[in-house]
Amino acid sequence: MEPLYVIKIGGNIIDDEIKLKQLLQLFANITEKKILIHGGGKQATQLAANLNLTQQIIEGRRITDAATLNIVVMVYAGYINKNIVAQLQAIHCNAIGLCGADGNAITASRRKKQNAVDYGFVGNIKEVNSALLCSFINQNMVPIIAPVTHDGKGQLLNTNADTIAQEIAQTMSSFFEVHLIYLFEKPGVLYNMHDEQSVIPTITTNLYKKLKEEKAIHSGMIPKIDNAFEALQKGVQHIVIGKAENLNAILQHQSGTTISF
Amino acid sequence: MEPLYVIKIGGNIIDDEIKLKQLLQLFANITEKKILIHGGGKQATQLAANLNLTQQIIEGRRITDAATLNIVVMVYAGYINKNIVAQLQAIHCNAIGLCGADGNAITASRRKKQNAVDYGFVGNIKEVNSALLCSFINQNMVPIIAPVTHDGKGQLLNTNADTIAQEIAQTMSSFFEVHLIYLFEKPGVLYNMHDEQSVIPTITTNLYKKLKEEKAIHSGMIPKIDNAFEALQKGVQHIVIGKAENLNAILQHQSGTTISF
Repeated sequence: MEPLYVIKIGGNIIDDEIKLKQLLQLFANITEKKILIHGGGKQATQLAANLNLTQQIIEGRRITDAATLNIVVMVYAGYINKNIVAQLQAIHCNAIGLCGADGNAITASRRKKQNAVDYGFVGNIKEVNSALLCSFINQNMVPIIAPVTHDGKGQLLNTNADTIAQEIAQTMSSFFEVHLIYLFEKPGVLYNMHDEQSVIPTITTNLYKKLKEEKAIHSGMIPKIDNAFEALQKGVQHIVIGKAENLNAILQHQSGTTISF
Repeated sequence: MEPLYVIKIGGNIIDDEIKLKQLLQLFANITEKKILIHGGGKQATQLAANLNLTQQIIEGRRITDAATLNIVVMVYAGYINKNIVAQLQAIHCNAIGLCGADGNAITASRRKKQNAVDYGFVGNIKEVNSALLCSFINQNMVPIIAPVTHDGKGQLLNTNADTIAQEIAQTMSSFFEVHLIYLFEKPGVLYNMHDEQSVIPTITTNLYKKLKEEKAIHSGMIPKIDNAFEALQKGVQHIVIGKAENLNAILQHQSGTTISF
């Protein structure tokens, strides 16, 4: 099967104009088929603060009330998405920005209350429209996905970008050899979180079990790695976690942490 | 040639949740191929006010400085566009939201200073990507266009929605029998602006000349009608100006003002 790169970037890149520009150039240089998923960043929080909206955070998770959802849609699907698309177009990458509502790209259902906590307008993904994404990709367009989905009944929903990347990778693995790459601020999963030289090159199921027992993995990484193993099980061919600046080396299997059975 | 409906809605509809919902249902009911272009509305002005941004208005035209452009992109290409798309998807209209940067849909050049007035990040349209729009339409997708274009060098530009509708209609008239419909708050061009019963059913070149001589046409309508005649000259097959609520009657040639040679 033909390779497809599904690449996710987060706030640490999006919030840094120079880093974002560099990353987009590395992304544009990829000659194979590709999809970019972007997260949010500080701009939504900043805009909410400037509008004097109080953000409710419960257990580290932002509650998406109606006013917050509007900001999420404006900043993620509007400002961030369209600026990335315009920058990519300028370097001859035929980007097309999509939220989950566009062409019915990603449907979700509103998350139910958990332990009496209502997270608000947050989506759990139901389905990725692989026909739509394949159609774009096969016309040499490059989908740029904002972390906003819809419920098919007119409601937009704030949705985790890591999960969107995972679900897209899983769905597309029926049609392509999918390389799912999570880019973040560290060069990979670190054995010692204070030492950037301590990147673990490959995490297998056995090593993961051992690392968890030793409590050698930073708790913030555990859901990411759990999701990566799930994606592997669901057919994604290759998964790496690494640093945005190292994208070239990651593509050449010379950087980052590979998640593998 | 197959018909294509190019329909433009403005702020009076967008700002009214119920009117917008009704209009989107009428639009979704059109069984022929179609494109919707939407303008802005009061939300951008409101957001700017809430952020304490002073809007510079010169001769009735908003100056699009960098901060205003960001708001325009957030509100027009984000909030308004994605909410329209989600609402249309809910009523089984396969909408896809686009700004001019997406798929390189519409390129523009930044407007030069006029009489020493710098309008800021405002675009004059250079080219509509008819291949892209035809591709969507022929896949039974319905493009929903936000009034934001790009210069191909990474810069987004605020662009007049009437002009976008006109340019899209002109370009698409090589491939389709284009019906360009401008929807606004009046039932058509009025002979007496205080009498909604005084709709002029058809304005020909001769009648237009006469009406202008008599000063019987409201000055705000003159650029709209001038643009309509230009669009006719450039190949658009049919042009009507009418009231959003009357879309059905307009489609049956029973409402609105037709602009005709």
